[in-house]
Amino acid sequence: MQRDVLITDLVDDLLIDGLAKAGYNVVYNKDIAQPEVDATIQNYTGIVVTTKIGLTAGNIRDAVKLKWIARAGSGMDHVDVNAAAQKGIACICSPEGNAGSVGEHCVAMLLSILRRVPEANAATRAFTWQTDEYRVTELEGMTIGILGYGHTGPAFARRLQGFGVDAIAYDKYKTGFNDAFAKSVTLNELFERSDALSVHLPLTTETRRMIDTDFINRFKKDIYFVNTSRGNIAAVGVLLDALNAGKIKRAAVDVLDNENFETLSDDDKRLYASLLNHPHLLITPHVAGKSSSTRRRHASVLLAKILDRPEL
Amino acid sequence: MQRDVLITDLVDDLLIDGLAKAGYNVVYNKDIAQPEVDATIQNYTGIVVTTKIGLTAGNIRDAVKLKWIARAGSGMDHVDVNAAAQKGIACICSPEGNAGSVGEHCVAMLLSILRRVPEANAATRAFTWQTDEYRVTELEGMTIGILGYGHTGPAFARRLQGFGVDAIAYDKYKTGFNDAFAKSVTLNELFERSDALSVHLPLTTETRRMIDTDFINRFKKDIYFVNTSRGNIAAVGVLLDALNAGKIKRAAVDVLDNENFETLSDDDKRLYASLLNHPHLLITPHVAGKSSSTRRRHASVLLAKILDRPEL
Repeated sequence: MQRDVLITDLVDDLLIDGLAKAGYNVVYNKDIAQPEVDATIQNYTGIVVTTKIGLTAGNIRDAVKLKWIARAGSGMDHVDVNAAAQKGIACICSPEGNAGSVGEHCVAMLLSILRRVPEANAATRAFTWQTDEYRVTELEGMTIGILGYGHTGPAFARRLQGFGVDAIAYDKYKTGFNDAFAKSVTLNELFERSDALSVHLPLTTETRRMIDTDFINRFKKDIYFVNTSRGNIAAVGVLLDALNAGKIKRAAVDVLDNENFETLSDDDKRLYASLLNHPHLLITPHVAGKSSSTRRRHASVLLAKILDRPEL
Repeated sequence: MQRDVLITDLVDDLLIDGLAKAGYNVVYNKDIAQPEVDATIQNYTGIVVTTKIGLTAGNIRDAVKLKWIARAGSGMDHVDVNAAAQKGIACICSPEGNAGSVGEHCVAMLLSILRRVPEANAATRAFTWQTDEYRVTELEGMTIGILGYGHTGPAFARRLQGFGVDAIAYDKYKTGFNDAFAKSVTLNELFERSDALSVHLPLTTETRRMIDTDFINRFKKDIYFVNTSRGNIAAVGVLLDALNAGKIKRAAVDVLDNENFETLSDDDKRLYASLLNHPHLLITPHVAGKSSSTRRRHASVLLAKILDRPEL
């Protein structure tokens, strides 16, 4: 039986070659758009996606031959995994592939807002030398709250080890997971003690909009806020309000609820503009886990996971 | 005998109160300028300075009562320490006070250039979402060369420990100083292996202009370059040439040879403008070691060192 696989985004050759060698007929169409996926999904045994392509319950229903969906990266919130599970379609992803890069990015973002590196850089490039204005805030001595302790949470904690901080972590589905890098705490302790919060949650029905104004106000101190997970967990309006209130002293985010600016309504465009212009915001365009090294690691992890299951 | 002390810049109260309690008559004139110091130095037993005030051989000659010079911070290159030594004037500084903050800043600057955080931030604030353009470079797996292993070099190395890098260090005046954070190497190994170089040298007659074009070209690879020590060690023209040649891929500096832009000649102004406008430069205005915490630590270290010597 012929097994056709559709790859819908740029992946490392390692995955293409590995699948071909294992007998798959690989259709590598990295520039494919959603409508073409919708129209042809019935042809494939396997499909490799990134967040660019969504797979709805409708797609899953149409996918009569589909045995597996492989996501190069972390988080399958753009795939209806319940619909897939009901049809016995395996959902495979590679959070191991980019956790290290995400952990690095969190440190980069946190230090950048504490030390106001982008502002100091812009002011100095404009031919001023304002040492007093750009006096820095030290990370050392702070208590860093980590919300979620799956793959990226520990990667972040490990990278904090040399900085003389207290790293504390809360995970609803794990307890007593103390390791060399972070201490497991209750949610209440996280609220009590954190000077900064970094979010490391998957986007699920439970976490969607979980970080609302009430949640942020439960922190005892005004906090520094880092989110490299999913924008829908802490919506733009919530962040903007907390920044304006000073409850969030500075925010560093790599994600937004809507990262496709062309689809914003006029009202949302105004809201987003207020956030993007906020002097206490630092933002990067969903790149925390995206390096040339992570692409290869995703390919390697996915290939191993697919080939490990001969039934696919 | 009355012992008068002049404090010439903002310091923590701890130092002012501590000196007063020890019997010194403290003149706290944090806004004093050089001419007034020049005109009154003969009155003082002790003087506390930052880089704002220089003490030349002439000042030292005039300072007939002076027993000690205390520098709040690291590096006494703005004080003629030889002239002071010849008159038996003690020179005291507090490199321990800000080494941690400098080490943090080096990580912040290095991650910022690897991940192009300021550029990605500016582009996204301008309402674009360019994930492919701002794909990141990972620190993990790199070999980080540390030039000079006194106070700030080890502080930087300690903070790198969680990132999965090889930290190697060369110090002309130390050998075999391997610790848990960095491996002691020869200068030649530093040139052979480094993916990035961070400079941790004091400014002396030996290190002034030490990092010239020849020095940079001895690195086997094109490198990322970080300098938080003194600008005069790697002059603006040298950096600009290496950036233009691509030998330095990106440079992150907290220091320049001349940090007082108003005193630049027209030619130098053009040269500095070329550097400040270079797309591969990140710059902060000599703030690596300047936080509210370091100010207190400098005060505490200096006070202890002064009071430890009853002869002063």
